[in-house]
Amino acid sequence: MTDRTLNVVSICGSLRKGSYNRMVMNALQGYAPEGMRITEAPSFADFPLYNADVQNSSGFPALVQALGEAIRAADGVIFVTPEYNYSIPGGLKNAIDWVSRLPNQPFAGKPIAIQSATGGTLGGGRMQYDLRRCMIFLDAWTINKPEIFIGNCSQKIDEKTGQIKDEQTISFIKQQLAAFAKFVARIGGKSLD
Amino acid sequence: MTDRTLNVVSICGSLRKGSYNRMVMNALQGYAPEGMRITEAPSFADFPLYNADVQNSSGFPALVQALGEAIRAADGVIFVTPEYNYSIPGGLKNAIDWVSRLPNQPFAGKPIAIQSATGGTLGGGRMQYDLRRCMIFLDAWTINKPEIFIGNCSQKIDEKTGQIKDEQTISFIKQQLAAFAKFVARIGGKSLD
Amino acid sequence: MTDRTLNVVSICGSLRKGSYNRMVMNALQGYAPEGMRITEAPSFADFPLYNADVQNSSGFPALVQALGEAIRAADGVIFVTPEYNYSIPGGLKNAIDWVSRLPNQPFAGKPIAIQSATGGTLGGGRMQYDLRRCMIFLDAWTINKPEIFIGNCSQKIDEKTGQIKDEQTISFIKQQLAAFAKFVARIGGKSLD
Amino acid sequence: MTDRTLNVVSICGSLRKGSYNRMVMNALQGYAPEGMRITEAPSFADFPLYNADVQNSSGFPALVQALGEAIRAADGVIFVTPEYNYSIPGGLKNAIDWVSRLPNQPFAGKPIAIQSATGGTLGGGRMQYDLRRCMIFLDAWTINKPEIFIGNCSQKIDEKTGQIKDEQTISFIKQQLAAFAKFVARIGGKSLD
Repeated sequence: MTDRTLNVVSICGSLRKGSYNRMVMNALQGYAPEGMRITEAPSFADFPLYNADVQNSSGFPALVQALGEAIRAADGVIFVTPEYNYSIPGGLKNAIDWVSRLPNQPFAGKPIAIQSATGGTLGGGRMQYDLRRCMIFLDAWTINKPEIFIGNCSQKIDEKTGQIKDEQTISFIKQQLAAFAKFVARIGGKSLD
Repeated sequence: MTDRTLNVVSICGSLRKGSYNRMVMNALQGYAPEGMRITEAPSFADFPLYNADVQNSSGFPALVQALGEAIRAADGVIFVTPEYNYSIPGGLKNAIDWVSRLPNQPFAGKPIAIQSATGGTLGGGRMQYDLRRCMIFLDAWTINKPEIFIGNCSQKIDEKTGQIKDEQTISFIKQQLAAFAKFVARIGGKSLD
Repeated sequence: MTDRTLNVVSICGSLRKGSYNRMVMNALQGYAPEGMRITEAPSFADFPLYNADVQNSSGFPALVQALGEAIRAADGVIFVTPEYNYSIPGGLKNAIDWVSRLPNQPFAGKPIAIQSATGGTLGGGRMQYDLRRCMIFLDAWTINKPEIFIGNCSQKIDEKTGQIKDEQTISFIKQQLAAFAKFVARIGGKSLD
Repeated sequence: MTDRTLNVVSICGSLRKGSYNRMVMNALQGYAPEGMRITEAPSFADFPLYNADVQNSSGFPALVQALGEAIRAADGVIFVTPEYNYSIPGGLKNAIDWVSRLPNQPFAGKPIAIQSATGGTLGGGRMQYDLRRCMIFLDAWTINKPEIFIGNCSQKIDEKTGQIKDEQTISFIKQQLAAFAKFVARIGGKSLD
């Protein structure tokens, strides 16, 4: 489909080390189609809370610039994130809020895929549409299908090895990554302007 | 309607000093019905990003406990917040994520009102329903009407004095605060359990 | 909790005879707390599509008035509805659109509960928040918890007998109906105005 | 940009003759870029309410098939629709529900644009994201920007002539239609499968 490597960065919405979402994120490369390289974006763990006064007095923190640069340089972005209180985790949203203010806004025209793993049955089904709405504002292009909602995730992911053990989940992930490769090729990673 | 003071805490979703939302929040007491005292809740400005590992190793930060305690002690909570990237500001969402994990979950059964001021015409119309959805999860009771969306806020708020100068906006705020007093009286600030 | 019967009307969002949602709706009385009588509201099956020209030239159809009157007379309303295309079924939404235009708007101040059954795993988790948002506009009060999402419903409902066979689902329904009785008592079925 | 005519069909969400949304829809051709032909899709005004029993016993009504065929044959679809009760008008949603069940699902891979005009200030800002969510399920591709929310529409549209008289609104519409032409060219009107 493409004669060059697709560079995709992944962003995990949870900061805890043993996060199921982190396990899913770490497993993605193993399910990616040939020619897709998935690497973790620089962490937002040490971002300050967004404050326009800080931005105006001190400029963008180096960590924010690093995340923004990684997104700009990527052919696409995959979010793998839990749902907190029926919406986007505050830490992830804070990262998006910072990045969105950068000059040459990094998400503009960027292909996006979303995955979520939760303990509950809905698997992040409330949060994902909020995240998609953020991406509309930022003029990123979020792939439609397949959507990946990994509910009851403790049964589908081996907490010790970090491996996904549910075949259906693996199949959905493979399908999404394959579709994402086609999507990136078609969308082309450029804004319409 | 009540023979005692209603203690309401307000939470501003923006951290910058000159925030229009902060101006609105600071003006609320002047529009409150008799017997309603509105005070600002302890700030979330210095909250760390939520991380369950931190919670498990170090417990809840004192600042988180302070905000939680203020919410528990209040008869109701008013959010006055901008919309960032079509949803809840990450900093405010992070505060909710921390508070939601506290024992004796502070938002349970708590009456809630929401106001938002934005530069755009929609006035926070996308964000407020995400915030309401968070409150459903936390079993807080958000008042229906009137909804307060202060669009084009630079025309309605005097940036120098911090005063609201748009009569319709003032009227809506007075109506909401009066309705909120009735709502608190009816809901009673208790969970159904 | 109350010395009189609570009259609750139920509205099914699906029109097909063998609908799982209809089965759930028909089973509700068996799980209701003492003193709650649940009866099906007049059907919207023969409502025309909403058209303001029709309303203005011919007035409200008798069927619309009948549904409106049933809602006005009830102490609360329970929606039991599928999700179509990730939102509210058009037929149900059309019914709400008609009823919302009636004088003495029937949903104002009315306590509301929502249940949904779907073949998919999310159980209506996208649709319910759209329906809640409609109810905000109409100033009805939707109960927070427990939310009832009956995913994979063909495994939880006996298609032949129409009985719910999943114990956890039954338990959630009983809890919601019991909470709804308390909610009706507290909210009182009146608008704040 | 393309050497052939782009055939776009428009669907109005309101059935009343004097609808502001209909006026906007009728004005679109005048603002379209060269090579884009916008024609109104067959009306859903006489669709029955969706009922799977009807579908199973009598098949799809001819009117439903006609709308589906028009969508399939088009290079893109533009919805111009009011917001009813903070969501999609029931009649329009009913049309989508019918069309979504057709074999060779008509919306799959179809480029979509959304516009809305309302009397209130938010201009349909709640409804549009529900409609976008429907389109995700149906694997249609909705353009991000510019979003068209025509609030306070009675001031921006001349009710007598049906002409749009607000220059900013006209400018947004022109921008959206021009962007839509590029979007159709890039997306190509095909599903990823």
